[in-house]
Amino acid sequence: MRSEIVVDPAPHPAWLPDGALAAVGRRRVGLRLPELSGPARDIPGADPDNSAEVASTLRAEVDRATTAHGGGVVDPDDSPDLLLTLNPDRHGFRFVRDGGRVTVAASTPTALLHGWFHVVRLGEAAFTGPDADERHSPAFALRVLDHWDNVDVHPVMGQVERGYSGGSIFYADGRVRDDLSRVTTYARLLAAVGIDRVCINNVNVHAREARLLTDDLPDVARVAAALRPYGVRTHLAVSFAAPMTLGGLPTSDPLDDDVRAWWRAAADRVWATIPDFGGFVVKADSEGQPGPFAYGRDHADGANLLAEAVAPHGGVVHWRAFVYDHTQDWRDRSTDRARAAHDHFAPLDGRFADNVVVQVKHGPMDFQTREPVSPVLAAMPAARLAIELQVTQEYTGQQRHACYLAPWWSENLGFRPWGGEGDDGRAVRDVVASGGIAAVSNVGDDRFWTGHPLAQANLYAFGRLAWDPTLDPATVLDEWVGLTFAGPDGAVHPRVREVLHAVLDDSWRTYEAYTAPLGVGFMVRPGHHYGPDVDGYEYTPWGTYHFADRDGIGVDRTRATGTGFTGQYPAPWRDVYEDLATCPDELLLFFHHVPYSHVLHSGVTVIQHLYDTHFAGVERVREMVAAWESLADLVPAAVPADVDARVRERLAEQLRSAVEWRDQIYTYFFRKSGIPDAHGRTIY
Amino acid sequence: MRSEIVVDPAPHPAWLPDGALAAVGRRRVGLRLPELSGPARDIPGADPDNSAEVASTLRAEVDRATTAHGGGVVDPDDSPDLLLTLNPDRHGFRFVRDGGRVTVAASTPTALLHGWFHVVRLGEAAFTGPDADERHSPAFALRVLDHWDNVDVHPVMGQVERGYSGGSIFYADGRVRDDLSRVTTYARLLAAVGIDRVCINNVNVHAREARLLTDDLPDVARVAAALRPYGVRTHLAVSFAAPMTLGGLPTSDPLDDDVRAWWRAAADRVWATIPDFGGFVVKADSEGQPGPFAYGRDHADGANLLAEAVAPHGGVVHWRAFVYDHTQDWRDRSTDRARAAHDHFAPLDGRFADNVVVQVKHGPMDFQTREPVSPVLAAMPAARLAIELQVTQEYTGQQRHACYLAPWWSENLGFRPWGGEGDDGRAVRDVVASGGIAAVSNVGDDRFWTGHPLAQANLYAFGRLAWDPTLDPATVLDEWVGLTFAGPDGAVHPRVREVLHAVLDDSWRTYEAYTAPLGVGFMVRPGHHYGPDVDGYEYTPWGTYHFADRDGIGVDRTRATGTGFTGQYPAPWRDVYEDLATCPDELLLFFHHVPYSHVLHSGVTVIQHLYDTHFAGVERVREMVAAWESLADLVPAAVPADVDARVRERLAEQLRSAVEWRDQIYTYFFRKSGIPDAHGRTIY
Repeated sequence: MRSEIVVDPAPHPAWLPDGALAAVGRRRVGLRLPELSGPARDIPGADPDNSAEVASTLRAEVDRATTAHGGGVVDPDDSPDLLLTLNPDRHGFRFVRDGGRVTVAASTPTALLHGWFHVVRLGEAAFTGPDADERHSPAFALRVLDHWDNVDVHPVMGQVERGYSGGSIFYADGRVRDDLSRVTTYARLLAAVGIDRVCINNVNVHAREARLLTDDLPDVARVAAALRPYGVRTHLAVSFAAPMTLGGLPTSDPLDDDVRAWWRAAADRVWATIPDFGGFVVKADSEGQPGPFAYGRDHADGANLLAEAVAPHGGVVHWRAFVYDHTQDWRDRSTDRARAAHDHFAPLDGRFADNVVVQVKHGPMDFQTREPVSPVLAAMPAARLAIELQVTQEYTGQQRHACYLAPWWSENLGFRPWGGEGDDGRAVRDVVASGGIAAVSNVGDDRFWTGHPLAQANLYAFGRLAWDPTLDPATVLDEWVGLTFAGPDGAVHPRVREVLHAVLDDSWRTYEAYTAPLGVGFMVRPGHHYGPDVDGYEYTPWGTYHFADRDGIGVDRTRATGTGFTGQYPAPWRDVYEDLATCPDELLLFFHHVPYSHVLHSGVTVIQHLYDTHFAGVERVREMVAAWESLADLVPAAVPADVDARVRERLAEQLRSAVEWRDQIYTYFFRKSGIPDAHGRTIY
Repeated sequence: MRSEIVVDPAPHPAWLPDGALAAVGRRRVGLRLPELSGPARDIPGADPDNSAEVASTLRAEVDRATTAHGGGVVDPDDSPDLLLTLNPDRHGFRFVRDGGRVTVAASTPTALLHGWFHVVRLGEAAFTGPDADERHSPAFALRVLDHWDNVDVHPVMGQVERGYSGGSIFYADGRVRDDLSRVTTYARLLAAVGIDRVCINNVNVHAREARLLTDDLPDVARVAAALRPYGVRTHLAVSFAAPMTLGGLPTSDPLDDDVRAWWRAAADRVWATIPDFGGFVVKADSEGQPGPFAYGRDHADGANLLAEAVAPHGGVVHWRAFVYDHTQDWRDRSTDRARAAHDHFAPLDGRFADNVVVQVKHGPMDFQTREPVSPVLAAMPAARLAIELQVTQEYTGQQRHACYLAPWWSENLGFRPWGGEGDDGRAVRDVVASGGIAAVSNVGDDRFWTGHPLAQANLYAFGRLAWDPTLDPATVLDEWVGLTFAGPDGAVHPRVREVLHAVLDDSWRTYEAYTAPLGVGFMVRPGHHYGPDVDGYEYTPWGTYHFADRDGIGVDRTRATGTGFTGQYPAPWRDVYEDLATCPDELLLFFHHVPYSHVLHSGVTVIQHLYDTHFAGVERVREMVAAWESLADLVPAAVPADVDARVRERLAEQLRSAVEWRDQIYTYFFRKSGIPDAHGRTIY
């Protein structure tokens, strides 16, 4: 019998429960921080930073941890166990362990804060390993979380577009919240994984949200002030039509002098109000958003217009490459949405200003469970490219399904667009080093931040991979478990660790198994995108088709007989994907239309694979449920009761939904193909 | 070249433009109305009525018409061309023409008002025919329009659920409108077709709307006052849970004494505020609405609870029979939504109080373009049954498609549940004589009332068929054209008349041709129900399936091998529908699952019929467009420019949508069946 669960009204501590700071908190910690009054940009070689404020945060963090766990703050010259010191230094921080004593040095308080949280993550191991001298700096210069939050509740998309975790932490009742303390708590979680930029509003900039750039600047400044103590800088998504809708100009033409002047003045006002403001994010000429096409200009013209405005302030423009025709005719098999970003952007390479980052979705479609890497990432050597991921699980279970996405992101970041050897073996993570990484946040005002408590692992992993994309996803998960489930003494019950690996390590492939097969994508309910609807998008203008008929399924994107999309890749992929003999099974239906009887590399037919994986996927969900339930005796000692209750509720829905996916997909394809299941399972 | 169209801000006059009253307005009219001060219920034999107020309306109508057209009001003894006289008389009115002079006599001012509009409808013919002495009384005692209007804009369903004509004429900004003059104008249009009852709020009674019964009674009284001058009485939809949600009781159990007392007190308050109030409409235990099932009671218990409360005031309870399981498992082919109303209600026959009207949707499903007549209409001889129609075109083109529904309603009303001879050859219209007829209104605050100007014809026809269900739909349409397109002199250009018949007479069958075939129903986009989505509802909980596979399609509802639904009909239909050899083609897939190669009575296969009708349907829409466009030279002389512009816009959308239906249905079934079109048309 389980006792009644008392729900704590405070936000869940996520990966920073007090116990996670036990190891550092037990130590004698010294801080060597020179008196800082101005921004750290005055320190030669330092990033723009708000040194005094972040330094003060760091002191408070150390005080809090040592007070809680019995350590103390000591004179930096009194042989502290851990010395945090600010020195002119390179990017990132230096970690030195010498005879069990640790020194972390960095050039800015923010980098030093990241170093502090590095020690927190290591826990006891920080102090017990062999002597070491390591430099740590982020692989990506820019690490951004994009919030698709609306100020006003949108009649269709709600307070947070594609949000599955309650309302916005920034907005309520049609304006910026009065109490932004939770935003600071969020910034602390981000600092602990090294994220330092947040775009606070939806890239679909509706009329109300557009005004954040002008009338609401004082409120945006309050948000920036709430993020700043943890070294997190604020960005805004802006509307390309702002000169008209906000400025009253007759045009938004990027080559118009009045338009250029308007944007410069707008940027000047923003930086005058928020000196450490980061920059603008733009979705233009996409899904109804305004853009330069209206004036016969291209996306380089558009992006450079804004780049020019923010350049004097050191700002950047994140310009999204997600541009395609969303009013496509389903009858026309020659138009291919997968081609669109490359068709629009590759020809513009070399024309973007230095402070423009072209932000490219990881795949050519839209955050599917499985799709190839976007060929745009190999097509713009002269541009600063960022890769865009989706932490919010729009197409991967909407935080009702446990689906740990780090393995999927890791595959994308490690993909070698020129093959193992070509272009010096560079991977996507190398291509985007200067432009960085961005992701749509999965956070809302839900007590657990992410609806599903286990979806916190995705946010954590995004931050860690943004710092170091070569990290092993299972190791990152292990870190996350070690922090999140740390007891007061910092220890995690070993069975908790084991079960979380059992539930999450392979959960993305499990999700893939019971949903759309072999890279074909979609098959979700239109609009909300949850649950199966095989034909839901088949006859729509959205360009997301599977072309299943009674004989076969898949999209022919070959150069030989299809849309020619394979030709957007450099060798070897242009040929690997083109040829049925070499195309990987998991992407088969993305690139080829094949009969149901086509035999995969795995040795089974497409239709039998579809039948089998859907049954296997459901069985794996049952195992996830059983694994979690095996922790029942550790509740609440090692697993908080409210976490357990929420996870159980979500797993039950995941199982229900997985069965629904299985039965619909299985039934649909049997009805269509007429090919019996080799294992004779029930068909409806 | 067309000149710019000036849009009149006033509501469109619909079927009462000034010209429609030219014939009566030119006459010398006498009125013989005794001074009336109290309600007409004081006149022996009269209906409860608001005689003084309606009499005053009638005087004003006569003044207005004669002033506009040169006639006049004369002494009733001075041989008027038209005498309107109030006499104790029977129900309805008496029309006497004697040597070109007309006398209309009725027992109540409302009946006399209906008689006046009868003369208006006849126009010159009222005065020019041979001598006549006719009695006119409505075939149905109760003729109700149900408005699915919400006070608050519902986040999913909007201001008017299934409304396609703008906002509500009753509500705006979360409350009853201040200016209700348009409601009175609406009442005038209704009086002109004989409708005398309106339920002013949605049968899905949300929290805000529930309060109309209590806190908002003064506002409801204002609506009633706006309807009253034209003899239209007000009804309210109420929530079965009101004793709990509004009354604070712990239960809504219909057998609980406190609940009974609460409803009695509620009804007392309503009638104290609105003495001519009509009664309550209830949707219970349906699609999430509360009902008696929660207490182990049945629908007779529930309905009689309210009947008892309203009986002292002469009120009626319209209790909807639309009760089914909307969380059905699509895998379970034995559950059949079509059976639900009969399963729930037929066993209760004989248990409903006299002032309960069981309101039955015309078909067993949900207002489809084609479905059989509901077997409930033949199964409850002891109950007062009403038939429920849907004037708002939820499933028939949403007032973007011209689809004149009178032929479809006429078929339903004329259907003989016991065959040509059984039960004395009674038709549905006879069955529902005492319970009457109800329909969901298609009216909103759109300038044309109904979005599509031609959808006014549906509202008009509903009223006319509610008065006389034996009227020929083409004749009713002719009346409507004669009134609506009357020039200042009362005449209609003959080509206008001809074109409107060409566009509308067969438009329902045209709509059927290009949408879901052979009675299978649905295949619409889930949620909003507009446009095609063959599998949209196939794997949902809503019970609306077609079971198409690569071999065949349709729902087996036979007793022999299916759900047994055919057994709910009396002979001969239980056998006609059961047998493939006798089942009418247009209902084939409603009752049977057949191979695509099944040959219809028409001689073509199911699949070829599907292909052919979809192409033919689109061609017929093209003809409708061409027919309307042939009127271009009569704009604005005989067709107002704003009407023309709106109709053209809607016809263009109808054609686009019809092509979309054709191509999706055609492609879907070719992909599934693999059977080529005998005519080799393009498949996508």
